[in-house]
Amino acid sequence: MGVGDISIRSSERPEAGSVNIQLGEFPTSSENNSVDAHKVANEVVSGFSDALSKQDHSAIAELFFNDNSYWRDHLALTWNLRTVKGNAAIKEYLDSSKVRLEKIEVDKSTNYRAPKFGAIDILGDVQGINFFVTFETSIGRGEGVMNLAEHNGQWKIFTLYTLLQELKGHEEPLGHRRTKGVKHGGDPARKTWKEKRDAEKEEIDPIVLILGAGQGGLTVAARLKMLGIPALMIDQNERVGDNWRKRYRQLVLHDPVWYDHLPYVPFPAHWPVFTPKDKLAEFFEAYVTLLELNVWTSTSLKSTSWDESKKQWTVTVERRMPDGTSQTRTLHPRHIVQATGHSGEKNFPKIKGMETFKGERLCHSSEHPGASPESKGKKAVVVGCCNSGHDIAQDFFEKGYDITIVQRSTTCVVSSEAITDIGNKGLYDQDSPPVDDADLTFWSLPSELLKTQQTKVTKIQADHDKKIHDGLRAAGFQIDSGPMDSGLLIKYFQRGGGYYIDVGASQLIIDGKIKVKQGQEIAQILPNGIEFADGEKIEADEIVFATGYQNMRTQARKIFGDEVADRVSDVWGFNDEGEFRTMWQKSGHPGLWFMGGNLALSRYYSRILALQIKAIEEGIM
Amino acid sequence: MGVGDISIRSSERPEAGSVNIQLGEFPTSSENNSVDAHKVANEVVSGFSDALSKQDHSAIAELFFNDNSYWRDHLALTWNLRTVKGNAAIKEYLDSSKVRLEKIEVDKSTNYRAPKFGAIDILGDVQGINFFVTFETSIGRGEGVMNLAEHNGQWKIFTLYTLLQELKGHEEPLGHRRTKGVKHGGDPARKTWKEKRDAEKEEIDPIVLILGAGQGGLTVAARLKMLGIPALMIDQNERVGDNWRKRYRQLVLHDPVWYDHLPYVPFPAHWPVFTPKDKLAEFFEAYVTLLELNVWTSTSLKSTSWDESKKQWTVTVERRMPDGTSQTRTLHPRHIVQATGHSGEKNFPKIKGMETFKGERLCHSSEHPGASPESKGKKAVVVGCCNSGHDIAQDFFEKGYDITIVQRSTTCVVSSEAITDIGNKGLYDQDSPPVDDADLTFWSLPSELLKTQQTKVTKIQADHDKKIHDGLRAAGFQIDSGPMDSGLLIKYFQRGGGYYIDVGASQLIIDGKIKVKQGQEIAQILPNGIEFADGEKIEADEIVFATGYQNMRTQARKIFGDEVADRVSDVWGFNDEGEFRTMWQKSGHPGLWFMGGNLALSRYYSRILALQIKAIEEGIM
Repeated sequence: MGVGDISIRSSERPEAGSVNIQLGEFPTSSENNSVDAHKVANEVVSGFSDALSKQDHSAIAELFFNDNSYWRDHLALTWNLRTVKGNAAIKEYLDSSKVRLEKIEVDKSTNYRAPKFGAIDILGDVQGINFFVTFETSIGRGEGVMNLAEHNGQWKIFTLYTLLQELKGHEEPLGHRRTKGVKHGGDPARKTWKEKRDAEKEEIDPIVLILGAGQGGLTVAARLKMLGIPALMIDQNERVGDNWRKRYRQLVLHDPVWYDHLPYVPFPAHWPVFTPKDKLAEFFEAYVTLLELNVWTSTSLKSTSWDESKKQWTVTVERRMPDGTSQTRTLHPRHIVQATGHSGEKNFPKIKGMETFKGERLCHSSEHPGASPESKGKKAVVVGCCNSGHDIAQDFFEKGYDITIVQRSTTCVVSSEAITDIGNKGLYDQDSPPVDDADLTFWSLPSELLKTQQTKVTKIQADHDKKIHDGLRAAGFQIDSGPMDSGLLIKYFQRGGGYYIDVGASQLIIDGKIKVKQGQEIAQILPNGIEFADGEKIEADEIVFATGYQNMRTQARKIFGDEVADRVSDVWGFNDEGEFRTMWQKSGHPGLWFMGGNLALSRYYSRILALQIKAIEEGIM
Repeated sequence: MGVGDISIRSSERPEAGSVNIQLGEFPTSSENNSVDAHKVANEVVSGFSDALSKQDHSAIAELFFNDNSYWRDHLALTWNLRTVKGNAAIKEYLDSSKVRLEKIEVDKSTNYRAPKFGAIDILGDVQGINFFVTFETSIGRGEGVMNLAEHNGQWKIFTLYTLLQELKGHEEPLGHRRTKGVKHGGDPARKTWKEKRDAEKEEIDPIVLILGAGQGGLTVAARLKMLGIPALMIDQNERVGDNWRKRYRQLVLHDPVWYDHLPYVPFPAHWPVFTPKDKLAEFFEAYVTLLELNVWTSTSLKSTSWDESKKQWTVTVERRMPDGTSQTRTLHPRHIVQATGHSGEKNFPKIKGMETFKGERLCHSSEHPGASPESKGKKAVVVGCCNSGHDIAQDFFEKGYDITIVQRSTTCVVSSEAITDIGNKGLYDQDSPPVDDADLTFWSLPSELLKTQQTKVTKIQADHDKKIHDGLRAAGFQIDSGPMDSGLLIKYFQRGGGYYIDVGASQLIIDGKIKVKQGQEIAQILPNGIEFADGEKIEADEIVFATGYQNMRTQARKIFGDEVADRVSDVWGFNDEGEFRTMWQKSGHPGLWFMGGNLALSRYYSRILALQIKAIEEGIM
């Protein structure tokens, strides 16, 4: 990601131009644990419904707590991602909406969804009444979450979250809506499934062209498939999954399986907690097969141009065919989804002396093939102290290298156990609710409140990780606890990087098995090593820059040129409402969308992005 | 399948040597619908438990209805598939068991499983109390179903069904037992997932060698994987799924998706009701990937020999490698699972004059590539009137051929709608319980009772299909209603064929668009057609024999030779207890097992087969 304003210290620095949002404030906890949660929920929602039927927006706003209340709305009332705070702003938001909210109901379909007195901060410090809602607007249907807080014996809405899930008349073909798969009876014009599928794969002139077939591309392609929008992914790699396959040898996902499910085809029950990269790559290939997604691999983009009047792109791509020939194809998509990774192009600094390096290898982490086996006595330096940097340093150690990791600023370090057992507990774990329910709960918390909640989580995690943290400090490794002490997740959301989920390298640092060079910029690369600003020189046979990836907007500039990129807004990090900027929503340039994030973000936001495209294509938006 | 005794008319004729089992008798329906089902269930099961703790087998037997009561046991008490009838036989069965049943409990985990007053015949004609049970033996755990019937105000066990599901200490690595996927911490000996997986795929010397990678091979391989038994499938085809891919062009499964789920990786929610063959083939490939099954394609068996003293096979296989070379490998499995299809080798009759045929094609249905497009005026004859015969005839019609279907005996015809909407209703449909629950319910009914129940189902289906049946008869097509009027399913179970699930060809026959030649054997093949026993001659440019497949034992003789095949018992069809013969259980030859059946049978019996192998390998059996 972009470096941001380096005058701000690393822990607080957000993505360039974005907001280091304030900490939200939870109301006081209710002690009225004998309350009839169902009854209160019914009353509040029925008051909501009454006001809706009269289109009395003031009355609806009055149901909210006070100025410290939130309505987070993902596409239900407008085509923007919004978090609106306080009665007045909520009324104004309702007034401005062109979509009519027609119905809202308490969801009692499962115990998890039904009203209960309990945590309204996920964590359990603040008690109130929590439940899911279902709603219907003039154009669609969705679900959401309502949290009620008590004030002087009165129950008010503290947070409401609404997520549009389907457009009326364009529901996904699931369950009762699945296709029949065959037309019974004699049909002289019959085409078999294979004939249709083969034709679709080769002859498609897609409405949506998706650049990249990683988790971002795959999930949005899957969502579009379910909405009946012809879409095609193109990817420079030879096989789907190569974006993971080609990464460093021993990479295993740092998030657990329960957090990582993709839409429609969940990981089966035997799937390991942490997915090795090559296994994930194979899953991706199976995902394409099972969902009949269209992808051209070994394909690169040759040119793009946007026709403002036709609202259409002209795109030329070159496909290397299995027989070695090349095929140039011109497509006319109405939308391009850039899914080249929210971390797109590698961030590979230009440093004086690089060209003089005489060692075995100097490369970016994305090109690192893995440490060579049996390399006792060889020297390696890894620049960068986030996940990749640590994993690669650990790989070097395991192969017998003398290994130094270069840390220029600070790193937010949380152990994998603390993430799995504390951070994801109850939401994304073996006994957690269905992942779609967990997502609704997770995204129901406005980012300000999430940040506050994460400061508490971060403290509990830090207690758990105290020995590691103390050891790291003693070893000269600098750690931080994220922006305003809100930890790893918010650092990821606000900045896109700057953390390490510890899967073992921290102990190697503590034990001196991985040495640390801290706080110094690199002055120059020497033929046999690195010289730092403080004059110290470290020898190296191999140097790996685990310095992350560039902003998607930088990537867009390379792909589409200045004319397009100049119209695009800044990408990633929060706006002042705590909503992500530009990703998964109108980008500033018509027909251009940004898709990306880890598997969980891709799962959630892929639908949001696909619904917007569907709405445009159906003339609803 | 084998032809059986042709002196028995087609509808009643079972697989050679098997039993056309009698119709079971349900008790009278209880009218005590105000009964407290939970209480009664608890009482009966607690009486059962008391007797168990005293090892009082007489007392247990006395809990059963009378001589007309059943205990169907799939591996819980013995390593045989058994249905024991009547108090005396049940006592004897308990006495003979070397495995101690330690615990049996009412399963109240879901509404579907919990005790309720209602149908004990699935259909709803006979009311009693139905519920699931869980049980534990000295070596394993399982689930089952109990049906109670009322007699003079007393509730007795009418049927008990027990299915062994896991061996203690060898539970499947699912959910909480899933693997971690990574070893955190510095590990100089680390092998990545890919390194281990690649080695496994190539270097495996399997405990179990599975011949064939269709649904039979895949499901048993999946079960063995979960039990930690190294297994390898070999298949002559180039790709997994080719057993379906290579079948006739327009083949679509005749059973609906809800009936067809494979273990561990269910079809996703968007999957079509009826799966086209090539789509199923792609699913099979994904299945191999997702479950990490080992399969060598393009591989044929060169030789086998059994070492009786070592209880081990020596098997030589030849693998055609992607680079065109061949590799000969010698393996030493302790078990061979023949999963070449319960319909194995094609059944291709030798008929006088075949070699003189001058038309475009004369082949078995398994080799039929599909009718040629735009063939108006060409003449085709299909011999055989089961699913394949009808589908292929329909294909010829759709391409403009003048087409005749040759029916020598009678066919059991049920429309696809009648199967889906009547036969599978409530058990395998969109709103049905989880497929494992449905399977428990389905297999809980002893075959005699299933047969009785199916006579009722068949009647309802026949009412639904009356117009088609009348039309077919009028068109000279002969239909039957299965053995003792028990319909299609029992005909499949007892004989392995002889039916058509109508997906449109029947109407074409009724309309004269597919002509019928009925009741005559073929006298000879002419250079330009067929001459029948009655002297009639039909011209043909193409002749397809949709005459089915041979018995697996015939196939075993070809593969393993007489010495092995002579020790093997007859395959398929029922024994006198109504249990399938020889399939999925001890075959008569140690270390040789038969696996096969449609997707639903493969799903259910694959675990039964895998558990037996696991028990042998662990020294439990």
